[in-house]
Formats: sequence, C-alpha cells, structure tokens
Amino acid sequence: MSRIDGRTPEQLRPVTIERGWSKHAEGSVLVSFGDTKVFCTASVTEGVPRWRKGSGEGWVTAEYSMLPRSTNTRGDRESVRGKIGGRTHEISRLIGRSLRAVIDYKALGENTIVLDCDVLQADGGTRTAAITGAYVALADAIAWAQGKKIVKHGRKPLTGTVAAISVGIVDGTPLLDLCYEEDVRAETDMNVVCTGDGRFVEVQGTAEAEPFDRDELNALLDLATAGCADLAKLQEEALARTLGE
Amino acid sequence: MSRIDGRTPEQLRPVTIERGWSKHAEGSVLVSFGDTKVFCTASVTEGVPRWRKGSGEGWVTAEYSMLPRSTNTRGDRESVRGKIGGRTHEISRLIGRSLRAVIDYKALGENTIVLDCDVLQADGGTRTAAITGAYVALADAIAWAQGKKIVKHGRKPLTGTVAAISVGIVDGTPLLDLCYEEDVRAETDMNVVCTGDGRFVEVQGTAEAEPFDRDELNALLDLATAGCADLAKLQEEALARTLGE
Amino acid sequence: MSRIDGRTPEQLRPVTIERGWSKHAEGSVLVSFGDTKVFCTASVTEGVPRWRKGSGEGWVTAEYSMLPRSTNTRGDRESVRGKIGGRTHEISRLIGRSLRAVIDYKALGENTIVLDCDVLQADGGTRTAAITGAYVALADAIAWAQGKKIVKHGRKPLTGTVAAISVGIVDGTPLLDLCYEEDVRAETDMNVVCTGDGRFVEVQGTAEAEPFDRDELNALLDLATAGCADLAKLQEEALARTLGE
Amino acid sequence: MSRIDGRTPEQLRPVTIERGWSKHAEGSVLVSFGDTKVFCTASVTEGVPRWRKGSGEGWVTAEYSMLPRSTNTRGDRESVRGKIGGRTHEISRLIGRSLRAVIDYKALGENTIVLDCDVLQADGGTRTAAITGAYVALADAIAWAQGKKIVKHGRKPLTGTVAAISVGIVDGTPLLDLCYEEDVRAETDMNVVCTGDGRFVEVQGTAEAEPFDRDELNALLDLATAGCADLAKLQEEALARTLGE
Amino acid sequence: MSRIDGRTPEQLRPVTIERGWSKHAEGSVLVSFGDTKVFCTASVTEGVPRWRKGSGEGWVTAEYSMLPRSTNTRGDRESVRGKIGGRTHEISRLIGRSLRAVIDYKALGENTIVLDCDVLQADGGTRTAAITGAYVALADAIAWAQGKKIVKHGRKPLTGTVAAISVGIVDGTPLLDLCYEEDVRAETDMNVVCTGDGRFVEVQGTAEAEPFDRDELNALLDLATAGCADLAKLQEEALARTLGE
Amino acid sequence: MSRIDGRTPEQLRPVTIERGWSKHAEGSVLVSFGDTKVFCTASVTEGVPRWRKGSGEGWVTAEYSMLPRSTNTRGDRESVRGKIGGRTHEISRLIGRSLRAVIDYKALGENTIVLDCDVLQADGGTRTAAITGAYVALADAIAWAQGKKIVKHGRKPLTGTVAAISVGIVDGTPLLDLCYEEDVRAETDMNVVCTGDGRFVEVQGTAEAEPFDRDELNALLDLATAGCADLAKLQEEALARTLGE
Repeated sequence: MSRIDGRTPEQLRPVTIERGWSKHAEGSVLVSFGDTKVFCTASVTEGVPRWRKGSGEGWVTAEYSMLPRSTNTRGDRESVRGKIGGRTHEISRLIGRSLRAVIDYKALGENTIVLDCDVLQADGGTRTAAITGAYVALADAIAWAQGKKIVKHGRKPLTGTVAAISVGIVDGTPLLDLCYEEDVRAETDMNVVCTGDGRFVEVQGTAEAEPFDRDELNALLDLATAGCADLAKLQEEALARTLGE
Repeated sequence: MSRIDGRTPEQLRPVTIERGWSKHAEGSVLVSFGDTKVFCTASVTEGVPRWRKGSGEGWVTAEYSMLPRSTNTRGDRESVRGKIGGRTHEISRLIGRSLRAVIDYKALGENTIVLDCDVLQADGGTRTAAITGAYVALADAIAWAQGKKIVKHGRKPLTGTVAAISVGIVDGTPLLDLCYEEDVRAETDMNVVCTGDGRFVEVQGTAEAEPFDRDELNALLDLATAGCADLAKLQEEALARTLGE
Repeated sequence: MSRIDGRTPEQLRPVTIERGWSKHAEGSVLVSFGDTKVFCTASVTEGVPRWRKGSGEGWVTAEYSMLPRSTNTRGDRESVRGKIGGRTHEISRLIGRSLRAVIDYKALGENTIVLDCDVLQADGGTRTAAITGAYVALADAIAWAQGKKIVKHGRKPLTGTVAAISVGIVDGTPLLDLCYEEDVRAETDMNVVCTGDGRFVEVQGTAEAEPFDRDELNALLDLATAGCADLAKLQEEALARTLGE
Repeated sequence: MSRIDGRTPEQLRPVTIERGWSKHAEGSVLVSFGDTKVFCTASVTEGVPRWRKGSGEGWVTAEYSMLPRSTNTRGDRESVRGKIGGRTHEISRLIGRSLRAVIDYKALGENTIVLDCDVLQADGGTRTAAITGAYVALADAIAWAQGKKIVKHGRKPLTGTVAAISVGIVDGTPLLDLCYEEDVRAETDMNVVCTGDGRFVEVQGTAEAEPFDRDELNALLDLATAGCADLAKLQEEALARTLGE
Repeated sequence: MSRIDGRTPEQLRPVTIERGWSKHAEGSVLVSFGDTKVFCTASVTEGVPRWRKGSGEGWVTAEYSMLPRSTNTRGDRESVRGKIGGRTHEISRLIGRSLRAVIDYKALGENTIVLDCDVLQADGGTRTAAITGAYVALADAIAWAQGKKIVKHGRKPLTGTVAAISVGIVDGTPLLDLCYEEDVRAETDMNVVCTGDGRFVEVQGTAEAEPFDRDELNALLDLATAGCADLAKLQEEALARTLGE
Repeated sequence: MSRIDGRTPEQLRPVTIERGWSKHAEGSVLVSFGDTKVFCTASVTEGVPRWRKGSGEGWVTAEYSMLPRSTNTRGDRESVRGKIGGRTHEISRLIGRSLRAVIDYKALGENTIVLDCDVLQADGGTRTAAITGAYVALADAIAWAQGKKIVKHGRKPLTGTVAAISVGIVDGTPLLDLCYEEDVRAETDMNVVCTGDGRFVEVQGTAEAEPFDRDELNALLDLATAGCADLAKLQEEALARTLGE
C-alpha cells in the first residue's frame, strides 16, 4: 500500500533538526517532521520553584502552544480566550514528563530549564516532533550551563536521550509518523516516547474508532520502537555538528 | 510478595457499584475501588452542541473533579483559582473518549449525555473508578432515555461496555489496581481502558522513574486485561439488579 | 393545612447527621434535611492567612458549592466557567460568618479550619443544612486538634453551638424548613441561624413576592427559633455517638 | 449617649438626593448619607435577557462597585484582579432584589433597566444609600421611558417606593444609620429595606460579635422602620422637584 | 467656521479643576473639560513594588476606567467581563508614563503613588482631562507626603508640570479639544502631552480616515502646544487656591 | 558618531521579507529587521463580525504576541497568566489600525482578514517590523482572495501601502531603526507609520527620559519619513518576486 505522500508504512517523513535557531535561548532548535515545524527553546534559570528549594535538585518543565495559523483554519489564541485548553495542557505535561525521564535532578543542581515548544506549522505529529526537538535544545542548554559552571563539573544531568513518534492504524494498516490527513482517518492513534536504548517512557494509545486488540498494539509498538531508534540517530548527528554550521 | 493491604499482585480492591444514588440524575452511581469513592451522574439533554446540530448524531462528554478534601491534604478549588488544572483537563478528556468508544452516535440521536465524575474520597485510581462507574450511569441514562422515547425504539446507542483499571510496577513487581501509597512508589504507572470483549480503548503508560521495557509492558497489559474483565462482570451484575434494591 | 410532603407547618424534614464520612478530613459529616444532602468536611491546618500572622488568633472559613447535577437540571461547573457566581459567594460567606460566631480565636491559636460544604443533592435548604452539618464537622475537627495538641490543653475554641433553618410564607402560611417546591412558591423566604442558647447569629429575610409585615416576620422568627432548637438537639445527639458507630 | 458625630441614636446623617447628575443616563442620582456618596444611574434598554424573551415582562438588575480610593486605604480594582469579590456580588444582588420588589414586570413590558451604583466615597452604609438613591434614579428612568412611549400609556411599573437603612448595636445601644467607625465597633449589624408603606423587603441581621436576642432584634427593627419612613419622605421630596433645579 | 458648541478652532471647552473632592485620598480632583468629567485620586503608600525594593527610588502608576454609564450607551463593566480591554490598558499606561515624566524617583524615595482616573461622564478627551487632573492630584499628594515627612525635606519629587489635550482635523480644519461629536467625525486625531515649559512628553497622532501630511501635523502640534500652555495656567491657578475653598 | 552595530544614524538594519513562509495561511511573511524576526500570517475568512453584518463592508484586525523566549530573559506566556498585558493590547491595536488605514472596506466586501504577528526573536522594533511584514502578508492574502473570487473582480481593497519604523534620540543624536540596546538608552522613542506616498498613519512619540522639543521632533520625523520610504521599496521588491522563489 502506498501512503498519501508515497512513503512506506514504516518510513518517517523527512526530519530536520536545526540547532542555534535563537540568539537568546541557551538551547534552541527548529525541528521538522515533514511539513510539521516546531520551534523549541530551552531556557536555563538558576534557582528552582518554591516547593523544591533547598532540595539540591533541579527542575525541567515544558510549555507547548500552537500559533493561531499553524493549522489549516485559524484557531483562537489561548491568551485571548483567557485560558489554556485541555489539549494544550495535556501535551505540555507529556513533553515535560518525557524530558524529565532522562534528567538526573541531583546532577542538574538547583537550576530550572523550561522547554518552550511553539508549533509554527502543523501537519500531524506536533507533540512527537516537539519532544524530539526539545531533547536536542535541552542537551544544548545543559552543555551551556556546564560551560558557565552553573551545572557543576563532572556531573551528567542527562541520563540518556529521548525521542517520540506517532503510529496509527489507517484502513487496517499500521503506519509510522502519521501526517494530518492520515491522523484524521486513523482508527487507532498512538504516541510513543522512547529512550535511546529502546525502552519506553510513555505509551499513549487511543482507539479513535474501533477498539484495538493486542496484536494491533504489538504491531504499533514495533513500528514506534524502530522509528524512535531512527530519530535517536538523527538527534545524535544533529548534536555532533558544531553549532552555527 | 504481600501488598500494603494484603492483596495479591493481580487482585482488585473491593469494588462496589451502587446505582440510583441521585434522585435528579437520569443515571447515577457511587463507585468504590477500596477507599476511592467517585460519584458519577449521567445527565441527558435533548439537543447537541452547536457544531453538531443537524447531523442526526448525539454527543457524550465528561467532567471530572476532586472535592477539595477528597485527598489527604486539602487542595484549592479550581472554581476559586478561576481555572481548571492540566490534570483535571486530561482526566475529563480521557473519561469522555473512553465512553464515546462504545457509543453509536446515530443511534443516540441528537441528544447529549454529560457524565459528571466527582471524587468524594481519593486513594489512587480515581480516573479508572470514574470510567468504570460512569459507564454504569451512562447505561442507566440511556435506558431512561429509551423509556421516555427520547432515544428511538429499536436503537442501541451502546455498542459495548467499557471499564478501566490502573496497573504499575512497584519494587519491580507488576501490580493491579494501585492504591495511593503504591501509586506514589510505582516506577511505572499505566491506565488501561478495555471494552467488555477484551479490546483496548486507551493504553496510557508512563515511566515515573525508570523507563520500562517491552516485557514489563506486556506483564502490565496482561494484568490490566484480566482486571478489566473482572470489572466488566461487576458492571454487568450491578446493571442486572433492579434499581432501588 | 397539609404540606406537599404531609408535614405540619412547624415540622422539620427527617434530619440525619452522619459523622466520619471521610477518611482524610479531620471532621466530616453527611447531613440530610429530607432529600437535601450536603457533604461537609473540616480541614485543620497549622498557621493562619498572612494578614493574621503573629496575632495569636486562629481563623475559620467556609466554601460552599453544588455538584453540577445536584439539582433537577444540570448546572455548569463554576470551575469551567472560570468564576464563582454571586449565590455561591454569598452562601460561602454566610456559612463562614455563622461558624465564626461560636469560635474563640484566641483559644483556637494560630490554626486555620476550612469548612467545605458540597451539595450532593439539593431539595431546598442547602445553606441551612450546610451550616448545621458544618458545625458538627467543626466540633470533630477541633476535638481532633485538641487530641493532637495542636490546640492547647484547657482551651475551648467553641463558645457554643450553631444551627440554621429556613422558614417562609407559602400561600399565606408560615412554614418551617421549606423543600424546593415550597421554596419556589414562597412569598417570603427567611434563613435564620441560631446558637444553641436560642440567640440569633444571622437573620436573612427576603420578600420574594409581596413585602412582609412585622407580624409575619414575628411568626417566621418563632418557627425558626423552635426549629433551630430541634436541630441543636440532633447535633448534640450526633456528637454524643462514638465516631464509627 | 452622644454618638461620634453628635447624633442621637435614632437620627439619620444628613441625607441629600441630587437628581440629573448625568447627561447620558435615563435616571441618575448622587445620594449622600453623611460622607458616604454613591452615584446611581439607571439605564433603560428595550428588550430583555434571552431567558425572558417573549414573556411580555421586563427586568431590573443592579451592579454595585466601589471606586478604588472610595475607602480609607486604596483597594485593588476588581477589573484588574479579573474577578468580582463576594461582598460586591452580595450587595449587587441585594440592590437588584430590593428594587424588583416594587416593580410590576408586566407593566414594564419587555424592557430592561440596569442600576449602576458606584461608591465615590465610603463612610458606612454604602449599600443602603445605594438602594435609596437607586430607587429615585429608577423612578426617573421609568418616567423617561413613559415619556418616550417605551413603557405603554396607563401602566404603572412601580408598585411602591423602596428605601434602606443600616442599624446596629454599638456598646449595647441600638443606633440608626451607622457611620464607618460605628460599623466597625458594632456587635450586631443589620440592613433593612422597607417599602414606603412600612413593610419589609429585606431584613439582614448579622451578629458581628455576640449573638443577639429577640429584644435587641425588635429594637433594631423599630429604629430601621422609622429611618426608612424618613428616607421615603426625602425620596418623595426629591422626586417632587423639577429636574434641573 | 463655527464649531458644534460655538467655540473657535483654537478654543478649549470650559475647564474646571476642583481639588479636595475626596476625604480619604491624599490628593483628589474633579476635572471637567466641558461635559467630560473625570474623578482623579492620588493614593500614597510607603514602599514600592518588589522589583524596585532597595533602589531608593519611588514609583508612580495610574489606572483609568470608565463608569458603565459614563457614555451614551451603557458599557459592560470590565470587572464583570473579567478582563481589562485594550483601550483601558492603553490609556492607563499613557497616564502613568505622562506623570512619571515629571517625577524625580530619587527625590520621591521608596514611596508609591497610584493615580486613579475614573470617568464619571464622557464627552471626548477623557484621557487628556485625566492627565491634566491627575497632575494636580499628584501635586497635592506629594505636598501631603512632604508634610507627613514621608518624602524627605528639601526634596522636589516634581521636576515640572504636565497637561494634555486632544487635537484633530474635522472637515479639513484643525481643532483643539474635540468633544465626542467632533472626535467621531475627525479624519485625524492626536493626543499631545506637554510639560509646563512647552516640551513634549507624548505625541500620539492617528489617521482615522485619510493619512495626514507634515503640514497638517504641524498645524495640530501648534494648536496643542498652545492648548497645553492654557491648561498649565489653569493647573497653576487651581494649585494656588487654598484647599477647601 | 558610530552606532553599536556600525550603522550611520539614518541607516536601517538589514531588512529581509520572505513570503510564503506558511503552507496554510493565505498570506505569510517572515520579516527581519536585523536580529528582530517576526512571523506574520494573514488569514482570510468569509463573513464579518456580528456588529458589521449586512454592511457590505469587510474588516481587518491584528494580534501581536511574543514567544516566551523571543527576548533575552524568558517571559511568562499570556495564555498561562490568563490575560493579555497592556503592551500586547496596545501593539495589536496599533498594527490593526495601521493596516486598516490602507483598506477600502467596501472593496473588500464582507470578508475578514486577521493578521497574526508572532515575534520569534526580539531585538528592538518588533512592532514596526510587524506592521511592515504584515502589509506584505495582507497584500498576498488579498491577491489570493481575488484569485478565489472571494473579493469581487475589479475591486482594489488596498488603497495604498504601509510601513513603519522606529526612531529615537540616543545620547542627543536622532537615530533610525533602534536595536534593543539603543532603545533602552533612548531619551525619546518614536514609532512612525507611513503610507507609501509619504503621509502619516500613526505618529507615537514618547519621552523616555527628558521631554523633547519641536526641533527634536522634526529631526525624528525626517528620519522616519526617509526610513519608511526605504521600507516601501523593499516591500515593493518583495511583492514583485514570484511566490516560491
């Protein structure tokens, strides 16, 4: 079966990870999964929220947002509506949890890193692109903090790497990295967050139409595990480049 | 290994499902999973939200909330803070999606059912208790609507049954139906929503400490599938009782 | 004249006061005035709000809320609307003032007690049931705080007891403890809060249709005084029972 | 006993009622009870809120607010805080109910009158001054609407007059029309709203310190009834003057 | 050309500046530009906002608001809508900046002055009347603070005076101090804030219909400069009067 | 005098205007003034806001926002704070007014165009870059709407072009197009919006430190007029390029 954009079922869209996209942020990445583009910045602040003071441990959190015209039809700004919607809340929390899964709070020391993931253009998979890009921005921010001696010498705040991909069943076929059109038609939709060593940080599967059985679940997990491994390589390559190249 | 409350790893807490707990609501249930108590009401309204008018299809949605002192320490009311938190949003959306998975919108006709799940007392697993209880309240509300001819004769708005349970890995052991103390100590926490025929509606697994591997995921899914099957029987028994008994 | 539910004009509905309804709260009561059911919890915290620090005096406050389907038609949640309505504000303030009327702040010490009164089912008189039940929860919470030495030995933070009842004129007849149907038809509606020794803490009378004269006011006050005395006895009996019976 | 400002216990402060204080509003009054000054406007709109459409009946409502520096210490604006406080809500509702007590909705027709009562300077009794002044603004607005044929010929939307006064027990003595200093020291505080024929529309008594007994309540009601009768005369005189004098 | 109200193009409306209009505020003014009436209070507080603590410098800020019926049609209260509109924000900021232009923060010491400008009646030019009146209230408040030794002896927190006026082009003619009807018809509208020595603090010109050229801009600036000079004299006269006259 | 970045006083920073930056929006531009980068989208919707229905006239409005880390220090999201700040409101209104100055509403027909200007990176002059870029996005959106026959044949909704630039006095020298460091040090700051034929749409000058005199104002206007003329040429060149080049 050929997909809308000609990919095979187990093929990622073209993925690009451009570092150093902001002159202000300690880490910054423009990540693209096909036409999905997310701008991720990592902001380092010395100190931690009040409830964590004196613990000797740091904190990492994330905020996700879509620009009003990142989608096909313009959406209202959440700032104008005066409240954050459920979907935004949910994705911000997912990104934060995913990155905290590879953080050693003690090694980070009492510092806070905020990941801002703003979707400039959406074509499906914005949350998985955000996690994948935010990891790279986070790694750059931590390197910066180590250079500035904000994070102490010899410590490794990152215990691993993390990437995420969507998978779904469309017309009975399990597919990797759904674009918007596929996502809309999917019977089942799953987002999987993996560490670089192939373990799971988050598995979120939802039956959009028909409930799914264990075999379908397994097929999706196989696809996602392989996809995350590919993304881990792309993250590694991106981080291997000298910033500014 | 013996659990905090003496259960075996694959054992549910005592579950009770009391129907007819409200004189006003079309369906109402007080559901208990051990010390977790959730009051679920199903409210039927003729008509649907604006975006669905004229479609001939109904709508089902849910709102979850915790009473301020349902937990060990009193929490601020979200009405007083003036906004709904991310966790509340997330769980409300999960409950709504789970119940919609067994709804035939056409058969429901242009009617709306709102499930309100208010946690009176929390001891872990509030969202899974809420889904399990809300299904029974929903079934009662639909029966009421059929009796009142609001839902037309011969139609079956419910395409199946749905129940949910939490599972997690505590000290390396996969456990079913975590109480609060277990939940806090879990390395991995998963909420699974199944239909009565054993298929999945939602699978949400999160590594709270260490990432988990495929074997651990499989062990958790096995536990959850069995637990949901047990809950499905309890739902069936509850619905078989005459209301008011 | 016989009332809708067969009571005489000066008769209360069946009143039940169940203590120990929550395993978390320091005091908790499920109070029923007929079909009106209010869940009251009292939460003790050491310390007082900022404006009271260093005064050596405690604080007692209350929050009232109705579950969305506690009424015949489902109401929107105030948390979802993002603001608290006038009626909720008004009743929360009334409950707080009523309970503070029997508190010796000095004896309480710099501790705060929050009374949460959540209406599970409404059939008229929710605010008076809330006050009556909250008093009992408050008494239990204070006893708990004395047991824990949070309130110092030999001190009596409670200077008396407090209960409340509604009265009204329906079809020209003064009635005690209006149910919802009577409340809707009342020409005059009054809520009266009394101490156990028969004095007034609050008198709030409102002409819903015709203004009322001094004689009518006197008749209502007579009814309410007697009703509150009955409630005081029921509170005393409830508190005399061993918790858990 | 002589009061702070030399009045006798049963004496009102100097009361002034200036009509025509706004060139825009259909009715407008600057009312003073001593140093308490409230600016009341009555705004007439054809049509009624949605829930009342087609009923043939009108609606009257009120909003109360204090300018930030109407008090001795500047208070935050509720618009800046983003929400209306409980006290504001409570008083707005009281003013609305009080004026609706003398409105014949049928005679008003499907028209809405909004009373805005903004406290320019506060020295106790702002809500009673507001009600007393708002009645006069309302009367002018109705006369205007009759002149414009918005209210039909031969109809009397006003079924009576309404005024309000505060009373309280200070150092054991019942006093009429408390100024701020007296209000702060009052053991009991009561606001009474009467019609011009001496009947009660609202009676709101609160024990600020000690609960009060029936004799004290009676003494306060006697004072208030006489005070409202005096205010009714002042309202009548104000309305007898030609606008613009 | 004769204007709507008979003025010449370069003529101000009758301007009155009444001081001492509040018994509570440290400075207070009722300023009228024709039918536009703004009540300005200046509130002095010892201390400064957190971000300025320890700087030895004071702060001056302003809040502008319109009473709901200050305009021809009643507007919703921003407190009821739960948020402040863009126009209100913009004018509050303009007033604050304008007054800060003549403040020596060091001389003020760590004290804060808040200017509240509440429009009682609007007929065009409310922001310019507000600035002009607020300056006088500010001067009175500073004199008060010097009298109370809150501002240290020998210091001059005011480095000059400030006034504001609107100008505009109506039917091709540049006019000073537009009333509402002129404002609505203006092709270009400009608000100019000047110091007493004739320099500019703010120039805000907006093409409402046609863009304007340099000559028109110059004509408007000439008018405004002269108008502000007239206002400076009126401010000086007002401040020369003994308070209470 | 040489500037921080080596420019002459009357020199713009490098300006780039990239069209077609979004696959969804009807018009989209990434505009850079040096390190200031603003992403502008123009969204066309058929229909107009309620208050304009049936007028036969269209509407154009704008929303401005800064990404949280577009600045040197991370700012809170306005969506998270639950309200829009005064500066954001002010700039959104300025952009909207500036673009409406060159719109013929009748020619646009009952269609709405929303300009979203999101600052990706800030280094001074974000509002002027936003206006300059938004004009180009608007022109593309109108061309699109003409192509789709949403705007009728033969009509020219754009009556001219519009661009904006900041000017200011730094250390006594008038400078064009201030970068952030210059902006912070400016004694006077002015934003000027001009049409392509050299007339003024907005002139907003503010004394940040010392008030400015007429000569300084004239020098700033000269600089701004020339700068806007340069920008108009760059806009023309950008629009002359084939989209996609």
